[in-house]
Amino acid sequence: MLLKRSLLSTKLLFCAAILCTSATSAATITDTDKAQLDQLKNTVLVSDDSYNIIESLTTEVGARMVGTSAEKQSVEWAVAKMKSLGFDKVWVEPVATKLWQRGDLTIKLTSPYPHPLVGLALGGSIGTNGKELNAQVIQFDDLEALKAAKEGSLEGKIAFISYRMERHIDGHGYGQAVGARAAGAAVAAQKGAIAYVMRSVGTDTNRIAHTGGMRYQDGVEKIPAIAISNPDADLLMNQLKRGQPVEMSLNLSAKPNDKAQVRSYNVIGDLTGSEKPNEYVTLGAHLDSWDVGTGAIDDGIGVGMMLSTVHHLAQLPKRPKRTVRVILFAAEEIGLFGARAYAHQHKGDMSQHVIGAEWDFGNGAIYKLTPGVGPSALNSIREFANILAPMGVALDENNDAKGQSDMSALGKEGMPAINFDPDGSDYFDYHHTENDTLDKVDQQALRKNTAIYTMFTYFAAQADVDFRQ
Amino acid sequence: MLLKRSLLSTKLLFCAAILCTSATSAATITDTDKAQLDQLKNTVLVSDDSYNIIESLTTEVGARMVGTSAEKQSVEWAVAKMKSLGFDKVWVEPVATKLWQRGDLTIKLTSPYPHPLVGLALGGSIGTNGKELNAQVIQFDDLEALKAAKEGSLEGKIAFISYRMERHIDGHGYGQAVGARAAGAAVAAQKGAIAYVMRSVGTDTNRIAHTGGMRYQDGVEKIPAIAISNPDADLLMNQLKRGQPVEMSLNLSAKPNDKAQVRSYNVIGDLTGSEKPNEYVTLGAHLDSWDVGTGAIDDGIGVGMMLSTVHHLAQLPKRPKRTVRVILFAAEEIGLFGARAYAHQHKGDMSQHVIGAEWDFGNGAIYKLTPGVGPSALNSIREFANILAPMGVALDENNDAKGQSDMSALGKEGMPAINFDPDGSDYFDYHHTENDTLDKVDQQALRKNTAIYTMFTYFAAQADVDFRQ
Repeated sequence: MLLKRSLLSTKLLFCAAILCTSATSAATITDTDKAQLDQLKNTVLVSDDSYNIIESLTTEVGARMVGTSAEKQSVEWAVAKMKSLGFDKVWVEPVATKLWQRGDLTIKLTSPYPHPLVGLALGGSIGTNGKELNAQVIQFDDLEALKAAKEGSLEGKIAFISYRMERHIDGHGYGQAVGARAAGAAVAAQKGAIAYVMRSVGTDTNRIAHTGGMRYQDGVEKIPAIAISNPDADLLMNQLKRGQPVEMSLNLSAKPNDKAQVRSYNVIGDLTGSEKPNEYVTLGAHLDSWDVGTGAIDDGIGVGMMLSTVHHLAQLPKRPKRTVRVILFAAEEIGLFGARAYAHQHKGDMSQHVIGAEWDFGNGAIYKLTPGVGPSALNSIREFANILAPMGVALDENNDAKGQSDMSALGKEGMPAINFDPDGSDYFDYHHTENDTLDKVDQQALRKNTAIYTMFTYFAAQADVDFRQ
Repeated sequence: MLLKRSLLSTKLLFCAAILCTSATSAATITDTDKAQLDQLKNTVLVSDDSYNIIESLTTEVGARMVGTSAEKQSVEWAVAKMKSLGFDKVWVEPVATKLWQRGDLTIKLTSPYPHPLVGLALGGSIGTNGKELNAQVIQFDDLEALKAAKEGSLEGKIAFISYRMERHIDGHGYGQAVGARAAGAAVAAQKGAIAYVMRSVGTDTNRIAHTGGMRYQDGVEKIPAIAISNPDADLLMNQLKRGQPVEMSLNLSAKPNDKAQVRSYNVIGDLTGSEKPNEYVTLGAHLDSWDVGTGAIDDGIGVGMMLSTVHHLAQLPKRPKRTVRVILFAAEEIGLFGARAYAHQHKGDMSQHVIGAEWDFGNGAIYKLTPGVGPSALNSIREFANILAPMGVALDENNDAKGQSDMSALGKEGMPAINFDPDGSDYFDYHHTENDTLDKVDQQALRKNTAIYTMFTYFAAQADVDFRQ
């Protein structure tokens, strides 16, 4: 979901979006719809609706990791909330997922002196079988450096990758850092390491670690995988540069169980279209969260925005022409299980999904939209982009969006997509941490972003446009 | 150490400090000393000396709570460091202190649903005797509201004070909040509560709790006392406002031991004066820290600034006239034990302590100085303040400083004082937390503040002024 283009090119495209007004010939947005979009904008920009939904989810349910009773509770919460907000039809679809239990972790320096570290097991990690591992720490600058270590050179050691994620508006530092989270343990085990520790994939400077999924490799021994906080990684580096051995101990009771089938649910709600009920403008967010915070940012905000969008549209005197469908996906954090299940179950009617948008990138104000539509439909998107331009949203004419986060699974099946990009500068301060809590929500940006999603959804549901063409 | 006057009045005083140049008649700072002050300023403003000392302390020793082996290590570190930096004489003086062991804490919500909370025992708290306490939470807005509760009304309950500390440049929100930390447990116990929980005294929004000292009251039952993080307190408040009972469980193995005498040490070093070796310009910081961070901000910064000040002065071709004495105080965090011991042991030569300054307020750039000197000496301070004025430092003419932090114990014994006030807006984001680590040090402000302390120390050691007069 993260784009590689720079803000600079975005600014140029923003100018292009304004200039292209004159090039648009056949308008697809009627004057009545323009007035309706304006009214929706004014209403949503002063509404606390999204925030109240996030507050409800994070206060009444809290964290909702796959396989927990809280996750079941979140499904009940979502069904009830959608019904109360004016959806015409609400249902669930089962998703087969897998179970992982975090257990408890104690991680500390034992040499040069005893010092507790702040760490979190990576999602999927095995534990230490009730034993305390104590070993020397061998540091690597990044995953490539670890890969370059000789086979057997880490026998009996703990491998430590110190790579620090960079902060960028579009979050592309995540892509550069996350490889070490996914693959680091397997590479370290190949070299003989008994455990794998990494600097958290995160941009903050808090004694708070960032969890996230990791993968073992077939035929390679499984070793515990742990992320420590940025200040703890700094301390390790300062100790290591003194040239004396640094030792660490860890005790982790995590329990993966890939074989246990756990049933989760996608929660789906329709606001039935008044003229084209079998065509779905599709909105997505994920309902599950990691267990350590309350999942306000990831992805409570997405849940709040999508439900609030429909709530606002449900209050119009007449349903929009197309059906608006919200999918609250299950089990995103452990690998898009809900999204893949939906795409599989809806292969037969995927052609009725006319366009899709997701929200799973936190807090910042939207500054760009990127469509992924057919060449004819692009003119219609340009028209809509001109309406958003005064809100500081630029059009990225590359027209190559495939769908963000869960929506990528539907994009793969041919559904056109539109991506909205917010300022993600602070997203990785909170992502996958204990700090992902309600107070982190930027209520002003949330109002703006909800207004944009509501406007987009109304536009897409009303437009007599085939977004595939 | 925290002033009540506003920044606005400071600005007015800043103008006054500049205008007063013309009113100064008999100059006490010679042209040679002015040139020396200028050279010191230029040298220190580009020096990383203070930072390197803090890096050394926090990397090689780490946290150094009273009674730990790390505290002993810190004394050895300080003696060796002072000798290496050019002090003429370094020694230690014993301080009788008391022991408290934090132990482990598990604190969680049990109703409306299970949810782990982030908390820290307050310093001095008893534990739960191996038992898990589980009880309903009764909320109070502040200490006054808790005091107003009826006797016996909290029987079997957990009292919770939700008061949120305010952020101010001079940190005066701390004074308004800290009473609940010190006295809350005793008041709660008087009403029958079985445990006391409070919102952390801190201005951050991290899932990180703030510890700090608390006191029991003679004749009142001792109950466990715990601070939870700001976002956890927010969650509790949102749950409580739904009107349903909220329950919490806690298990704490803290062990106070007031009777065990623990020996700590003040570490003292002199740069012997070339003309008045028996007159001491006194600089203070505290060497101990809480156990949860590495004590970089509280008070590694003070240690770094004081040692660096002497290091710079030791490199001058000639020692300043008066002796410069640095006292690294023991056991400040548990109640100024080292400062009181020093004041007691030096009652006989307190008159030789000509003026004192401390640093124990973290990270921000200094914007104000407040003397506490005799009326005649004030003119000399005005002269010095005029030299600092271009660095953005205003003179507070109230002339009522009593000495900050540890230095207040020497101030009580009649030593004149000078207080330097930094922008303390972010001090209580890190104060007494796991987040008090090296990366939080603002290196630019540190260089400026060290320059100011070095200039002040040189001025005070050279000036032919009796600061008591």
